[in-house]
Amino acid sequence: MDAAKAVMPRPSGSVDHLARLARDDMAGVDAIIRARMQSPVSVIPALADHLIDAGGKRLRPLLAVAAARLAGGEGDAGLKLAAAVEFIHTATLLHDDVVDSSRLRRGKVAAHLIWGAPSSVLVGDFLFARAFELIVETGALRAMEILARASRVITEGEVLQLTRAHDLNLSQQTYLDIISAKTAELFAASAEAGAVAAGASLDACAALRAYGQNLGLAFQLADDALDYGGVTETLGKNAGDDFREGKATLPLLLAIARTGPREVAFWERAIGRQEQTEADFRRARELIIGAGALEATLDLASDYADSAKEALSLFPANDWRLGLESLADFAVSRRA
Amino acid sequence: MDAAKAVMPRPSGSVDHLARLARDDMAGVDAIIRARMQSPVSVIPALADHLIDAGGKRLRPLLAVAAARLAGGEGDAGLKLAAAVEFIHTATLLHDDVVDSSRLRRGKVAAHLIWGAPSSVLVGDFLFARAFELIVETGALRAMEILARASRVITEGEVLQLTRAHDLNLSQQTYLDIISAKTAELFAASAEAGAVAAGASLDACAALRAYGQNLGLAFQLADDALDYGGVTETLGKNAGDDFREGKATLPLLLAIARTGPREVAFWERAIGRQEQTEADFRRARELIIGAGALEATLDLASDYADSAKEALSLFPANDWRLGLESLADFAVSRRA
Repeated sequence: MDAAKAVMPRPSGSVDHLARLARDDMAGVDAIIRARMQSPVSVIPALADHLIDAGGKRLRPLLAVAAARLAGGEGDAGLKLAAAVEFIHTATLLHDDVVDSSRLRRGKVAAHLIWGAPSSVLVGDFLFARAFELIVETGALRAMEILARASRVITEGEVLQLTRAHDLNLSQQTYLDIISAKTAELFAASAEAGAVAAGASLDACAALRAYGQNLGLAFQLADDALDYGGVTETLGKNAGDDFREGKATLPLLLAIARTGPREVAFWERAIGRQEQTEADFRRARELIIGAGALEATLDLASDYADSAKEALSLFPANDWRLGLESLADFAVSRRA
Repeated sequence: MDAAKAVMPRPSGSVDHLARLARDDMAGVDAIIRARMQSPVSVIPALADHLIDAGGKRLRPLLAVAAARLAGGEGDAGLKLAAAVEFIHTATLLHDDVVDSSRLRRGKVAAHLIWGAPSSVLVGDFLFARAFELIVETGALRAMEILARASRVITEGEVLQLTRAHDLNLSQQTYLDIISAKTAELFAASAEAGAVAAGASLDACAALRAYGQNLGLAFQLADDALDYGGVTETLGKNAGDDFREGKATLPLLLAIARTGPREVAFWERAIGRQEQTEADFRRARELIIGAGALEATLDLASDYADSAKEALSLFPANDWRLGLESLADFAVSRRA
C-alpha cells in the first residue's frame, strides 16, 4: 500500500504566502540569530550553525512576527522575541535528539553524533540562556513571563512523554496533554509574545495565543501521522523514528484500539517490550493505515486547524490573516 | 604521604556564622524551592528532590540573601532570586553529571544513574526554566539581565572546559577563564542580584559582584585541590574524578610544569591519551603534592579570598560583613 496515497487530500495550505509577507522581518530575525549565536568558544557557533543553517521552516519565529504584524505592530519590537523563540526551539531539538538518540535532523546527521552528547547538551543550554538574554533586552515583562512559562511547560511535556513511552494503554487525553505541552505551548507562546510586543489588546493577544495553540496541535498531529505516512527523503528525519522509539502517538494508539486481539501480541512485543525486527515498521504502518488511524489522526489535525482559523475571526481579513489561515491548512496538508 | 597533611593550614573560616544570621531568610528560600520544584509530572519533583534534599551547602542562595542584607535590604525581595539561583545551579549539576558521567553527587548516587540521562537532561531544563519564571515574578529587570547572562557564561565555561580536556598544554590563563565562567560567574551574579534586589547603590552592587567573583575563584581552586587532596567520604563525590576525566585543573597543570621530563610520558599517557590504570591516581597525587602544586593552588585560592574580603571594605563591619569574610576563608580552608 502506498502510504502517501493512503489518506484523503486536505485543503492545501502553504507557508509561502506568509513567508513572502514576512521576508524583511525574517531577514532581521535571521541577522539577530546569526549575531547572537556567536561565542568566543568556537564549538558553540559551529554546533549551533549545523542545526540553524539546515534551516527548518522557522515556523515559530514566523508566527511571532506575523502575530505582531496582524496585531498592528509597526516597529521591530517583535524581532528579538522571534529570534529568542527560535533559540528556545533549537535548544529543545538539541536536547531531544540526545534524549531520543535520533540520528537525523533537518536532513543532516544529528549534532550529538558529530560533536558528542555532552556538547549538544551544553550548547542547548547556551541557546536557552541566550534566548533569555534576548528576551530581557526587549524589556517586555509580559513576554518574559509567557516564554519562561512556555519553556517550563515544554520540559513537562517531554518528561511526561518519556515516562509514558511504550505505554499501549496511554489515553488519547494524555497524548493530547503531551503534545499540547511539548509542541503547542511554544506555538501559542510565540504568537502571544508577538502580539504582546505589538502592544495588542488583551482580546487580540488571547486570540493569537488560541491560534498558535490550535496550530501547534494540528502541526504535531500531522507530524505524528507523517512518521507513518511520510518518506525519509522528504521528511529530513527518519520515517518510523517514533515507532522504533516506542512513542505512543495517536496513529499507534488508534490502531491498537481498532485492530483485533490477533494483533495485540505484535504491539506488546514491538512497542511494549521494544523487541523489534526490521520488518516490524512496515507491518505497523500497514496496520495503522488499514485501521484508518492515519486518516483519523489527520481528521483531528484538520479540526484543530479549523479552530486556529476561527480564532482569527476578530481580525480584519488582510494579507497577514490570510497567510496565517493558509499556514493552518499547510500544517495538516504538508508532506514534510 | 598523607594528602590531608600535605598542605599548610590556612585561616579557618566557617559558613556557620552566616548560616545562623540568614536562618530565617534561608527557611524562606527553602520553602520557595520546595513549592516551585513541584510539577504534575511526578518524575520531575522526585528527581529534583534527590539532589535538592541532599542539601549541599546552598552557598549561592546564601550569598544572594547575605548580599541583600549587607546592602540594607529589608523585605523579602531577594528570596525568590536566591531560590532561582539554586535552581540554576542544580540544573547545571544535573547536566554536568550527565556530561561527565559522574557517579556520585552530594554523597548520593548521581540522578542520571537512577532515572537515566534523558530525565536528568530534561529535569535540568525544567529547573532552568523555572528559575526564569521565578526571576520574572520579581519584576527586577536588572536581576534578570544579570542571571540570564550568568547562565549563558556558565555554559561557555563548560564547553571550553570540555573541548580543552586532556590538554596538557592548557595555559594557566585559560584555566582561570574556564573557572571564572563555569563557577565564579554564578557566585558573582548571585551576590550582585541580591544587592540589586535590595536596591543597593551601583558601587555596592559592583563591590558585592567583585566579592562573589573572587569567592567563586577561591572556591573552585580549593575544589580542584580537594580532588587530589581530599577523601571521598568527606567530599560527597569521588576524589580523583577530575584526574579520571582528564580535566586539566591547576594542580595538574602546575605539577606537569614542575615535574621533570621523566614524568612527561606518565602525564601524556594518563591525561593526554586517557589510558589509566588503578594505580595512576595515587601516583598523580604524589607527584602533585611532591611538586608543591596543591600548596600553590591553595595559595592562589587564598589570594582570591583576600580580594573577596577587600571588596567588602566599603560596607560597615557588621555581622553580615563578618559572616561573608569568614565564608571567604572557609572557601579555602574547607575539607569538603
